Amino acid sequence: MSDKRIEHDALGDVEVPAKRLWGAQTQRSLENFRIGRDRYVWGRDVIRGFGILKKACALANQALGQLPEEKAKPIAAAAQEVIDGQWDDEFPLVVFQTGSGTQSNMNANEVISNRAIQMLGGVVGSKKPIHPNDDVNHSQSSNDTFPTVMHIAAVEAVADKLLPAIERLADVFKAKSLVYGGVVMTGRTHLQDATPVTLGQVMSGWQSQLEHAADLIRTSLGGLYELAIGGTAVGTGLNAHPNFGATVAAFVAEETGHPFISAPNKFAALSAHDALVSASGALRVLAGAAMKIANDVRWYASGPRTGIGELHIPENEPGSSIMPGKINPTQCEALTMVVVQVFGNDHAVAFGGSQGNFQLNVFKPVMLSNYLDSVYILADALDSFRLHCAAGIQPALDRIEENLARNLMLVTALNPHIGYSKSAEIALKAHREGLTLRQAALESGILTQTQFDEWVKPQAMTGPLAV
Amino acid sequence: MSDKRIEHDALGDVEVPAKRLWGAQTQRSLENFRIGRDRYVWGRDVIRGFGILKKACALANQALGQLPEEKAKPIAAAAQEVIDGQWDDEFPLVVFQTGSGTQSNMNANEVISNRAIQMLGGVVGSKKPIHPNDDVNHSQSSNDTFPTVMHIAAVEAVADKLLPAIERLADVFKAKSLVYGGVVMTGRTHLQDATPVTLGQVMSGWQSQLEHAADLIRTSLGGLYELAIGGTAVGTGLNAHPNFGATVAAFVAEETGHPFISAPNKFAALSAHDALVSASGALRVLAGAAMKIANDVRWYASGPRTGIGELHIPENEPGSSIMPGKINPTQCEALTMVVVQVFGNDHAVAFGGSQGNFQLNVFKPVMLSNYLDSVYILADALDSFRLHCAAGIQPALDRIEENLARNLMLVTALNPHIGYSKSAEIALKAHREGLTLRQAALESGILTQTQFDEWVKPQAMTGPLAV
Amino acid sequence: MSDKRIEHDALGDVEVPAKRLWGAQTQRSLENFRIGRDRYVWGRDVIRGFGILKKACALANQALGQLPEEKAKPIAAAAQEVIDGQWDDEFPLVVFQTGSGTQSNMNANEVISNRAIQMLGGVVGSKKPIHPNDDVNHSQSSNDTFPTVMHIAAVEAVADKLLPAIERLADVFKAKSLVYGGVVMTGRTHLQDATPVTLGQVMSGWQSQLEHAADLIRTSLGGLYELAIGGTAVGTGLNAHPNFGATVAAFVAEETGHPFISAPNKFAALSAHDALVSASGALRVLAGAAMKIANDVRWYASGPRTGIGELHIPENEPGSSIMPGKINPTQCEALTMVVVQVFGNDHAVAFGGSQGNFQLNVFKPVMLSNYLDSVYILADALDSFRLHCAAGIQPALDRIEENLARNLMLVTALNPHIGYSKSAEIALKAHREGLTLRQAALESGILTQTQFDEWVKPQAMTGPLAV
Amino acid sequence: MSDKRIEHDALGDVEVPAKRLWGAQTQRSLENFRIGRDRYVWGRDVIRGFGILKKACALANQALGQLPEEKAKPIAAAAQEVIDGQWDDEFPLVVFQTGSGTQSNMNANEVISNRAIQMLGGVVGSKKPIHPNDDVNHSQSSNDTFPTVMHIAAVEAVADKLLPAIERLADVFKAKSLVYGGVVMTGRTHLQDATPVTLGQVMSGWQSQLEHAADLIRTSLGGLYELAIGGTAVGTGLNAHPNFGATVAAFVAEETGHPFISAPNKFAALSAHDALVSASGALRVLAGAAMKIANDVRWYASGPRTGIGELHIPENEPGSSIMPGKINPTQCEALTMVVVQVFGNDHAVAFGGSQGNFQLNVFKPVMLSNYLDSVYILADALDSFRLHCAAGIQPALDRIEENLARNLMLVTALNPHIGYSKSAEIALKAHREGLTLRQAALESGILTQTQFDEWVKPQAMTGPLAV
Repeated sequence: MSDKRIEHDALGDVEVPAKRLWGAQTQRSLENFRIGRDRYVWGRDVIRGFGILKKACALANQALGQLPEEKAKPIAAAAQEVIDGQWDDEFPLVVFQTGSGTQSNMNANEVISNRAIQMLGGVVGSKKPIHPNDDVNHSQSSNDTFPTVMHIAAVEAVADKLLPAIERLADVFKAKSLVYGGVVMTGRTHLQDATPVTLGQVMSGWQSQLEHAADLIRTSLGGLYELAIGGTAVGTGLNAHPNFGATVAAFVAEETGHPFISAPNKFAALSAHDALVSASGALRVLAGAAMKIANDVRWYASGPRTGIGELHIPENEPGSSIMPGKINPTQCEALTMVVVQVFGNDHAVAFGGSQGNFQLNVFKPVMLSNYLDSVYILADALDSFRLHCAAGIQPALDRIEENLARNLMLVTALNPHIGYSKSAEIALKAHREGLTLRQAALESGILTQTQFDEWVKPQAMTGPLAV
Repeated sequence: MSDKRIEHDALGDVEVPAKRLWGAQTQRSLENFRIGRDRYVWGRDVIRGFGILKKACALANQALGQLPEEKAKPIAAAAQEVIDGQWDDEFPLVVFQTGSGTQSNMNANEVISNRAIQMLGGVVGSKKPIHPNDDVNHSQSSNDTFPTVMHIAAVEAVADKLLPAIERLADVFKAKSLVYGGVVMTGRTHLQDATPVTLGQVMSGWQSQLEHAADLIRTSLGGLYELAIGGTAVGTGLNAHPNFGATVAAFVAEETGHPFISAPNKFAALSAHDALVSASGALRVLAGAAMKIANDVRWYASGPRTGIGELHIPENEPGSSIMPGKINPTQCEALTMVVVQVFGNDHAVAFGGSQGNFQLNVFKPVMLSNYLDSVYILADALDSFRLHCAAGIQPALDRIEENLARNLMLVTALNPHIGYSKSAEIALKAHREGLTLRQAALESGILTQTQFDEWVKPQAMTGPLAV
Repeated sequence: MSDKRIEHDALGDVEVPAKRLWGAQTQRSLENFRIGRDRYVWGRDVIRGFGILKKACALANQALGQLPEEKAKPIAAAAQEVIDGQWDDEFPLVVFQTGSGTQSNMNANEVISNRAIQMLGGVVGSKKPIHPNDDVNHSQSSNDTFPTVMHIAAVEAVADKLLPAIERLADVFKAKSLVYGGVVMTGRTHLQDATPVTLGQVMSGWQSQLEHAADLIRTSLGGLYELAIGGTAVGTGLNAHPNFGATVAAFVAEETGHPFISAPNKFAALSAHDALVSASGALRVLAGAAMKIANDVRWYASGPRTGIGELHIPENEPGSSIMPGKINPTQCEALTMVVVQVFGNDHAVAFGGSQGNFQLNVFKPVMLSNYLDSVYILADALDSFRLHCAAGIQPALDRIEENLARNLMLVTALNPHIGYSKSAEIALKAHREGLTLRQAALESGILTQTQFDEWVKPQAMTGPLAV
Repeated sequence: MSDKRIEHDALGDVEVPAKRLWGAQTQRSLENFRIGRDRYVWGRDVIRGFGILKKACALANQALGQLPEEKAKPIAAAAQEVIDGQWDDEFPLVVFQTGSGTQSNMNANEVISNRAIQMLGGVVGSKKPIHPNDDVNHSQSSNDTFPTVMHIAAVEAVADKLLPAIERLADVFKAKSLVYGGVVMTGRTHLQDATPVTLGQVMSGWQSQLEHAADLIRTSLGGLYELAIGGTAVGTGLNAHPNFGATVAAFVAEETGHPFISAPNKFAALSAHDALVSASGALRVLAGAAMKIANDVRWYASGPRTGIGELHIPENEPGSSIMPGKINPTQCEALTMVVVQVFGNDHAVAFGGSQGNFQLNVFKPVMLSNYLDSVYILADALDSFRLHCAAGIQPALDRIEENLARNLMLVTALNPHIGYSKSAEIALKAHREGLTLRQAALESGILTQTQFDEWVKPQAMTGPLAV
């Protein structure tokens, strides 16, 4: 028995490995697009998204009288297996294919039709009794299915992986900000000593940035809940029942638990992916916040002896192949490298999003790939950073106190009493003569020792967590 | 009489032009930062924002018992003149200065204090009876005033200039989409002929993109309504009354008509500008949409003889210095160049936003400058495109009909009747043999002339505006 | 027998799978950095680069009397196996690790030392007689080895994969530009009809862009030939022989056939990767050129009936799951999606490159990963585009002639004879009245039929390939 | 007398201010493109570039017998005045116009023809005896003149402003690196203490980055020396003498002193601006280097009391409106903000560069504008940073010594004597028990006091400037 079978499509015959459920068009794509095969094969969420959509379409077609139950049922059953991850190996295509994702849509159609045929005891590749185009793809086009899958996969990835990871990290900082509300430390602006803050306040700032970013990402899902399905080839819904889009969206919403709806304007939904560009922009905000936080952590932990040294972070691995005993802020580094990657990914999403023409944007796969990659590596990196770094952060109390005592900007507490100009004189005197602030203040003759001690109280200068 | 006066600050004496209301620190900045002076001087919105804020702070200080009425009132009066644009020439500083915007804050303090002194009959430069730091800047720091001004200027610019410009253009497309709902034309996907759409549908897609972008931009203002004021130097609110932030925000809200509030976490508000990065991302969505629309327009108008040629656009100017009679889609070109600029500006905003350290982000001015520039040029370009192009778009009906008649993808209407495979045969036969679809269909023997004419009706293939 | 062995490093004990050649530090990294494991594991070129470098270091250490032959030889032998790809499975680490690449350097040290120990009949994990740090890493630090591997991998990837792919595609266009030198077609500027060009000239422009890009990429390798090795931990070369860098570079040059040298300033070589940023910029130029070319091809091939339709491109697969018989320019789409990815990757490289501090840039892995990814997908996509599209491009002669005949911009040939203004009159008359240029010219009375026919000769208007 | 005159072009009559030298097409552009008028008017270099080109074209036309001397001479004379800056106010157009720069080309044609007419005693606006198109623009098209001006302006700006500014700053660091070759300080990798370096070495790294960047920028001019002139409308050179391009290039080279030549492929030269994208990439390398250097300086200068504090930088202005006596690294901030802007500008250049179609790229003005802006602000900022910061940098010797003494990574000097593992033990012991390295070493019993003192010598660990 041959290990190949011959499939036929509009352009002629194609040899397909006999054991495969995929068909002619998947095979053509495999052969015609040998681009980045090692890194750019579609993953679980996209395959699952196709399963969810094809099942919902079968059910909708049945509900609307477009497909008989004896076709819709096996299609839904086969699609369910795709949802469940049983056929991931049958999805071998890469991102860099046709820009509409047509070949991935056909991959899904072929696998599901052949699997349904199998279930029904038919001959794989025969297209009978379940045809990949006429049945599985019934009422659909790649032009509306692929963007629908983009949204399903994006929403699920964000909801399942990223938002929880952000919240877990924000919670760590929230808990610590309460614990360390009494740790008064040097504030720093322009990298220069400034008036004091508490470590709790610092951490509340990080928490706030994370929570704001989570809010923005959550809000950005709004646009992704709108599904293109029902638009078919160009947005007009040709060959689909007028209620098809809404019906499919309802089934998808039920399957996923997310409030998907039918996009109000299908012409925009096929020819532009502004909602994904916007959602990627929200990921970029998170990335920027992560950069700030990771940088703060590593600078606060810099040293151990000749840096700022006000935070201890976990020692996870030897830091140097040549410098013995060196410990480095490696989780911060991994996270900031992820940030850099996410900025790059976001750029690709936005660029692709700007390049639509007429009734279709043909940068769909590369936009989806970059968006999902950002979601995954951000989720992974936030978790890694939390587990191996943030959770173990502790204040270096001795150093914090030592630094605070030397901080000349405590002088700011004198402004309300002696004015900005005289305060400035005292601070510059201390700075230039190497005095403590107290020494300089007294030597200046502007105020008394008692006044100084009453007015300059670091703890009192920090105030509550939120102003 | 000398045309210079001597001002004094913490670092010593500075010569200032006698006729100027600005003081020592503005002068130092002028001399120390000769960077991009021709393009990067702050404009009206930022100066106005400082006026609004300084007035609100004076009123809040008075209301909270922090400044006596005899100081607060003249400060508010002088600030009102700044709001009104009477002293724009007194704000000569550029974007590339200290990264906290301190020198622009001091510029405002100096101008307002000197103007108030003038009003009170005092000596400009004397700092009496109104001191730039102790009085005008009372309860404030550059670190909370500058980000507050960023938000005020950004919100006003978007609300006054950009949102109306988007809406005006969307309205043009909305009106035209209704007018041209009956113009059936070739749909195009992958730049290739596809099933038909109406020109009304095409324009509804553009309208939808613009309206979605406007929504995103409007939503993005949410983060900008949160003001940093009240945080003072590092977010703790040192030297400010606990209610100062909320009181100032209320005055600013009243002055501007926008729902500004006090930011819930001042540590994040000073050390990060994620809300502005997010808002810039929303502008990028608009830019991407504009790219799609402008490209569609110029491609539809391409020709006049050997392009697609399905739209007429206004002939505004001779297009070529060498090719006589050439007319070019120049408004599309200006708009897409603006898009490219906005993508660049957005990148700068996001990069700067990621680079904060500890209690301060010192990329404030460059972030604000790029955001505002994007707002202005988008607003200008959308208006220009609307006035000189979009409003005058008309269908080239002859060409549209001619193209539609030749379009082989009308074959798709046959799918429900004869299936995808047989339809494909007919279309490829027509394509390869240079036949019309009707000819190929009949020659194929698959269907009758009557069937063809009943099944293939372009108008019927387009459906309603929204599916 | 247990399937784990216990390894020990400065921070304590680590369980390692018994069958693995990697050791404690690789294992720690595996456990501590679960970020993007499915897409970001290092590939062949980087592993090979480590093999080349470690072999060269062993030989250099021996040559300079720093390691005895009985250590250097087995290290070199084990490294040779790494070069040859025998141990790729022993390199499981991902990009998002420590930003210096320390863990990948240790991975190489551990695998090579254990493999050398195996070869010598010792106990894997014993560090005897070949120690991963003291012997394999002798005279080295991650801080100089990783950037050295970056350069080796980058140069080899470009030289072996990308430059040949560019040249192959440029050659296709070169050959075709000669074949089609006589095909006169409508020129187009601003998407509008312009004076004629030959298809050969059009293709020569594509060829020229590709060749210029190849030159820029080749030039960009200049900076990559400079190797950091010899700088050790901070650039001072501590613990390395003064000639170590130059000696290693010579061995690497010999092994690879590329003119690697020792970087003249090691402080810059460790703390910045400007040469890689520059090289990535050169890839971006290629990407931009590819965008232009792929866009031209798909627009020229647009249609088949209602677009420009002047080029035929190969029909590789059915284009639509709903529109039968549709053929799309999918290779152009894959290539332009790659372009979008490369722009994103380039952005990540440049961002990471700007973020060094003091004696080290800790964005090394993410910079390398993005650069290599760009090289690979560009090489793949150019080859795919060439094989499945460019090589099969043919002019649609009928359409080309038809379009040329209708092109009003042939009027430009009249400028030297009747001036720009009168020529413009004729062209606009033809445009507005729907006349041919010839008709309008004659009706204008400005010139005679004979003059028109003598002056307006499209072929004569095109000139030679290069002006 | 009216203050308007009526001009006429192919599209009809236009009112132009009577006193203006510009004509109908400039006027149309002014009215049709009200976009960013306050920031985007073309500046001196571009106007000068037009003057240089138009003069060279007149001379070339005369030399090749295309224009009589009585026309060429006054054109050249008027163009010379444009070169000299006498008519800058006559160039009111902005970047966001037609994407070919046609309107700016016509602006130059109109001003020069009218000025020549004036010189000859004719009537401004009469187009006699010097016609803007037929005479000033003779043998030219906007499509070849504008990209030629792009290259002239870019080369002159880089050569006159940027390269000298880079060299001046590199020279400051070079001089200081020699002066401070004996200042041994803590090295830092991963922000953590590492083996020592000298301040001279650190500065040599900065110098090296700057010099490499200057080299890259200089190399990038290579592509800019190739001029599009001679290609006319679409690259074929229609209506131009075959030697026109080369002759003009020679005149331009003579006028400017730069080795301009005629571009070998005019089709690429009009439809793509890869050389400018590449040149912008070189500016981005400089920007990235500046980011690293400015960050190093401000971190080394951080404190003054609780940061790293190893460098003193000049105190240029009071740093805070609320914190008296605060001094901030404002020049570093301005420079890094410029970096962020340059990254944004570069992005716009590259995006625009990718968007050409057929025989023309219509993003020319926005590409030029961003490139020039980057050149100017980089030049300004490097000079400002040098004058007000770099030149005044001094080591804080007490702090440097204190930090060096506490640095545990001096342990690395023990590796060659006792191996990595034992060295690691000593360092970690010191770190965890708060001991000096010497104490920990002695307590460990691994080596003697004499051995320690002989082996651990910071100065000896630093080596020469270049390894």
